[in-house]
Amino acid sequence: MIGAGGVATVAAFKIAQNADVFTEFMIASRRKAKCDKIVEDIHKAGLKLDIKTAQVDADDVEQLKALFNDFKPELVINLALPYQDLTIMDACLACGCNYLDTANYEPKDEAHFEYSWQWAYRDRFREAGLTAILGCGFDPGVTSIYTAYAAKHHFKEIQYLDIVDCNAGDHHKAFATNFNPEINIREITQKGLYWENGQWVETEPLEIHKDLNYPNIGPRDSYLLHHEEIESLVINYPTIKRARFWMTFGQQYLKHLEVIQNIGMSRIDEVEYEAPLADGTGTAKVKIVPLQFLKAVLPNPQDLGENYEGETSIGCRIRGIGNDGKEHTYYIYNNCSHRAAYEETGMQGVSYTTGVPAMIGAMMFCKGLWKKPGVFNVEEFDPDPFMEQLNKQGLPWHEIHDGDLEL
Amino acid sequence: MIGAGGVATVAAFKIAQNADVFTEFMIASRRKAKCDKIVEDIHKAGLKLDIKTAQVDADDVEQLKALFNDFKPELVINLALPYQDLTIMDACLACGCNYLDTANYEPKDEAHFEYSWQWAYRDRFREAGLTAILGCGFDPGVTSIYTAYAAKHHFKEIQYLDIVDCNAGDHHKAFATNFNPEINIREITQKGLYWENGQWVETEPLEIHKDLNYPNIGPRDSYLLHHEEIESLVINYPTIKRARFWMTFGQQYLKHLEVIQNIGMSRIDEVEYEAPLADGTGTAKVKIVPLQFLKAVLPNPQDLGENYEGETSIGCRIRGIGNDGKEHTYYIYNNCSHRAAYEETGMQGVSYTTGVPAMIGAMMFCKGLWKKPGVFNVEEFDPDPFMEQLNKQGLPWHEIHDGDLEL
Repeated sequence: MIGAGGVATVAAFKIAQNADVFTEFMIASRRKAKCDKIVEDIHKAGLKLDIKTAQVDADDVEQLKALFNDFKPELVINLALPYQDLTIMDACLACGCNYLDTANYEPKDEAHFEYSWQWAYRDRFREAGLTAILGCGFDPGVTSIYTAYAAKHHFKEIQYLDIVDCNAGDHHKAFATNFNPEINIREITQKGLYWENGQWVETEPLEIHKDLNYPNIGPRDSYLLHHEEIESLVINYPTIKRARFWMTFGQQYLKHLEVIQNIGMSRIDEVEYEAPLADGTGTAKVKIVPLQFLKAVLPNPQDLGENYEGETSIGCRIRGIGNDGKEHTYYIYNNCSHRAAYEETGMQGVSYTTGVPAMIGAMMFCKGLWKKPGVFNVEEFDPDPFMEQLNKQGLPWHEIHDGDLEL
Repeated sequence: MIGAGGVATVAAFKIAQNADVFTEFMIASRRKAKCDKIVEDIHKAGLKLDIKTAQVDADDVEQLKALFNDFKPELVINLALPYQDLTIMDACLACGCNYLDTANYEPKDEAHFEYSWQWAYRDRFREAGLTAILGCGFDPGVTSIYTAYAAKHHFKEIQYLDIVDCNAGDHHKAFATNFNPEINIREITQKGLYWENGQWVETEPLEIHKDLNYPNIGPRDSYLLHHEEIESLVINYPTIKRARFWMTFGQQYLKHLEVIQNIGMSRIDEVEYEAPLADGTGTAKVKIVPLQFLKAVLPNPQDLGENYEGETSIGCRIRGIGNDGKEHTYYIYNNCSHRAAYEETGMQGVSYTTGVPAMIGAMMFCKGLWKKPGVFNVEEFDPDPFMEQLNKQGLPWHEIHDGDLEL
């Protein structure tokens, strides 16, 4: 596993809980001390798995290759930054390793995400006889598997898909992002995008929003965003007439976001800046990306867990033609308590809901259930064994048949 | 003159307009190119004064001394950063130069301003036979001179003094500060302070505010701040029972300020940060003060002039016992148009209202009208010749006798 942030911490805990499947495990990241800390916390929690750690710069293919040739992993779980997907895939191909990630590649210099870069690896993974599993977190990941499950068991034809992502938690900070602030702010400040009648429709950032009711939570203002799983789902389910993604934001969060943009701190270009060297030997002209510097002063998402109250609720609202030939609606979702996630892993619910599916995806691969040469989005595999594990591993799902979808 | 920002640009224009008084003039700053640009703009505007330029780091007393020994200025006009007041005063003492500034010394590592540090130079300037004129901008500066003028001509006893500072301009930016953002944000985020019945009363930042009506502008929400001229005025006019300072802020400005604090970008401590070197030779660990970095991404106050509409209105509202032994009120103020300031000097009104008084103060010194050994606040000199120049140099004043002060 590459990465040692909040999601990686959760995945490591869940891997250690499933030591019957995961017999050998290494955590590598840019700072080895962070990996060692995760192992220490896992052992403190009474889990026994022997876990190796290593230092690696995931931007550097040669370093990755040296590490993979040394440890010889069967599967590389990529929980590093989305910028690093391609270097890690390159190293996997060079060393004969299978691959799994939770977020698609983004170039560092534009806030833009799509699968094209990673889909371009299909031939090479297929020819190498290696499996690459893309987007195996919650959204993308579980939301795609929910859709696959609905298509397999409940619908002859899925026509309308709305993925709804609500975080009704309260971390008691004036402002903090729930995952890497750099990635979070890039995602929200880009234009909205949805699929309708065979084409993409673009909106201004956060232009479309409406109140949606979430189970056990109530109404929350929800904003239409572009989200990567829509891109593959409309290809893999061509009967879909409209597919959209919605995420809740509070007014306080949006106010902070607006100001962060107004003052120039969401910029992702480099600013030249002269600063004193930390070792006191003078000053140096450095290049600083404002959004990356902002990350250094914002609360660390990994530190939000302790006083985080409330729940997340993420699911799919689907309308289409059922197996009986009639129109049906279907809402499948999971609610996750921030506090329960923290008590189990020391991390809040947003890290938990991403890290647990990453582990289950790895489990699917290791059990030989999700294993075929090529590059695949998760809805291209059998959803049933994954859905079974969701119930066992802390992310149980619930279904509402023929309810009001509000959408 | 040390400094090459917006205020310095205005002062240089006005000095060049008064070439009968200012026969030799040099502009020095950390970046000589900025000084050369000011000279170029002054000459483009048809003003003929021969102006020298030089490079100097105002943090470095030895560099300042070398420059002063070379150019041998009679008066050093300090329009650099408030952190640099003391190094410049030290160099003046060492080289036998007189001194004038517009803002009192602040230590770099705490948002705190008071005159004690500069008043501690009184003996040394007196013994050296040198004059130091402190706080000769608009506020402090003209507001202190307005008070001196009121005391000289209209009041036997000033009892209540409210300095009111309104910027009703619109620069058409989502957020920008009107002068150095670092200094501006430090000033506003510190606790409020006012003088009442012989003692200082502290308030939370921006705790006290009320709508005040400004001439030609109308009502604006005005916030009680600590401002440095109050400190010397209550000493020099001991009959004052209450002295306060008010500044207007719009809701949009305050929203941005709140968020800047919440996200940690107003911090003035150093954050260690690793960044790529601008010359591409690797990365370096540097120390960055968030508020200083924010300054690098916010609009430059010097660039606000072009589309700046509206006016500033700054004045003193005074109540006390008149020369006739009866209670009187008195409101003396100047309104300054951002557009007119820009057309004359290329800078907006906030720079203009500070730079013009700095030039007039220098003129008072050069004419021998404000010249006595020691360190003085501007109200300790004769206000009359200064008041006369205000009307001639672009900052005419207006008086309202026995009106409603609202305070």
